[in-house]
Amino acid sequence: MPVKEKKKTKRAAGQVGTLAAKVIAGERAALAQAITLLESSAEFHRADQAELLKVLLPESGRSLRIGITGVPGAGKSTLIDSLGREFIKRGSKVAVLAIDPSSSVSGGSILGDKTRMELLSREPHAFIRPSPTSGMLGGVSLRTREAIVAVEAAGFDIVLIETVGVGQSEIAVRGMVDCCLLLMLTGAGDELQSMKRGLMELADILLMSKSDGANAEAAERLSTEIKLVLPFLRPFTPGWTVPVLLASALSGEGVPELAQSALSFRDCARASSQFDAQRRAQNEQWFEERLSFELKRKLFAGDTKRAERYQALKSALQQGASNVVDAVEELLSQA
Amino acid sequence: MPVKEKKKTKRAAGQVGTLAAKVIAGERAALAQAITLLESSAEFHRADQAELLKVLLPESGRSLRIGITGVPGAGKSTLIDSLGREFIKRGSKVAVLAIDPSSSVSGGSILGDKTRMELLSREPHAFIRPSPTSGMLGGVSLRTREAIVAVEAAGFDIVLIETVGVGQSEIAVRGMVDCCLLLMLTGAGDELQSMKRGLMELADILLMSKSDGANAEAAERLSTEIKLVLPFLRPFTPGWTVPVLLASALSGEGVPELAQSALSFRDCARASSQFDAQRRAQNEQWFEERLSFELKRKLFAGDTKRAERYQALKSALQQGASNVVDAVEELLSQA
Repeated sequence: MPVKEKKKTKRAAGQVGTLAAKVIAGERAALAQAITLLESSAEFHRADQAELLKVLLPESGRSLRIGITGVPGAGKSTLIDSLGREFIKRGSKVAVLAIDPSSSVSGGSILGDKTRMELLSREPHAFIRPSPTSGMLGGVSLRTREAIVAVEAAGFDIVLIETVGVGQSEIAVRGMVDCCLLLMLTGAGDELQSMKRGLMELADILLMSKSDGANAEAAERLSTEIKLVLPFLRPFTPGWTVPVLLASALSGEGVPELAQSALSFRDCARASSQFDAQRRAQNEQWFEERLSFELKRKLFAGDTKRAERYQALKSALQQGASNVVDAVEELLSQA
Repeated sequence: MPVKEKKKTKRAAGQVGTLAAKVIAGERAALAQAITLLESSAEFHRADQAELLKVLLPESGRSLRIGITGVPGAGKSTLIDSLGREFIKRGSKVAVLAIDPSSSVSGGSILGDKTRMELLSREPHAFIRPSPTSGMLGGVSLRTREAIVAVEAAGFDIVLIETVGVGQSEIAVRGMVDCCLLLMLTGAGDELQSMKRGLMELADILLMSKSDGANAEAAERLSTEIKLVLPFLRPFTPGWTVPVLLASALSGEGVPELAQSALSFRDCARASSQFDAQRRAQNEQWFEERLSFELKRKLFAGDTKRAERYQALKSALQQGASNVVDAVEELLSQA
């Protein structure tokens, strides 16, 4: 009885309103449930998602959104564990989200293991959410954007967004945060590796992470080298001078200065109206992403065969066995 | 009589086949006409566009696609004038296209003035096409991708794609070329300006342009500085060492070496199978772009009011006067 099943998953009238009210009241279970609803690609969740977002939107937008980037192994989650607690100490509520555009294969959810942020996850004022799995229709960045709305409506005033994948993640996160933090790896033998293509140019704050023990000297050296390279790069946010900081997530050294630097960045960007300008530009990206996603969802709604063809055509294109024009024509035929 | 007008603009059966045959035979007027057809956003051109592309596709793909990036004033068109003639001297047919994702406002077509590439435009083996104006539905990068198919089918084996806008252009061009050339400005007082954020990391070849006269020394100096920075960046194409070249488009000095370097890049990328892998990945991007564009076109087809609302909603979002969820809901209602 597929009809009955559909009814079961679609929320009854008023239920979304109740969920939204609970989110705004700061109920964690409701927040988790709301994000799960927002992550769905199912056609029968469409109306509920829109209704939920409409109630949450006026309550959102008041956090500082910070992107945390850096190559795998740079110590992103250890730093978030430490930085998140620092912000909580200063009276904030901290949400941690993740974005992984490459997760269509791996299935994402590397953050699922909460032991990676053990101390932070025990804090009552922290909320940690694994990265969404990429659904068939893509839209990973759309999901993270809408999860930001939910955590902000729930009262979280610092949102840390960890980039999990490599490559597209940093560009995706840059399109949804106010401030971008890049962790530079030191003491890993090949320090140049961490200065990954393009990453440095997207950052508002550079951090020599793992600046402790035997690494301390290497971090200092790297910091000096980077300060030489930095003048060759234009700061992403006009009017802001990108600082090069040192921190140890283990000892906690440098972490208060890092939190302070992020807050200074916010004040500087607000004063120059860059902050609002960037958010409005990001809203436009969100609009185009949401429109494209909804149009795709409409195309495949109630048409499993077409959805399967979409996947098959993508594979065929990867193997050079089809061409783009035929593939699009076929998908749109009889739509 | 709108119906009659529609008939007039839609080509009669067989006419697209004739146009395609003329393009493949290398007729320049037909090529120009084909690209104009491919650039149309009109719903009644949809079928003709697909038919045309389907005939041209099997004849395409055999060129070397080179992106030319650099800040305004770096001398991109002067260099293309010189580099294009160098390739022709070596027996190639050279097409010049342009991409300007920012042209929705300016109207693009900065290349319209052919005097900017005066000598090249007189060559019988050159074809220069102004950048497409961005239609209401966007799709600037889609149009340039499909213009590449047309010029390749017409037998052009070197395609130079000039980035006209600033910012998104370089990322857009990187997604459609085999080899990316970055012009670095020298002698302009502030040399650091030219090392624009992110640009250097997308390039396969770095060129100190305008390396002549009073600039020669400054170009040498900049070249030395860049060689110091370069080891900190990972090459975009694995296995390829990014060369730092000097050239003067005015005297022609260094231009043969530049052409040779692009051909060496092609051989290197082919040998490591990077060339084909990149093209397949670009095909997938093209597929998603084309699908999104066609879905939008379908949404607005024969519905002027909805199309006008789309524009009005975008303006409202820019001014913070609407929200994304309502805007998308409104556009999709009754669709």
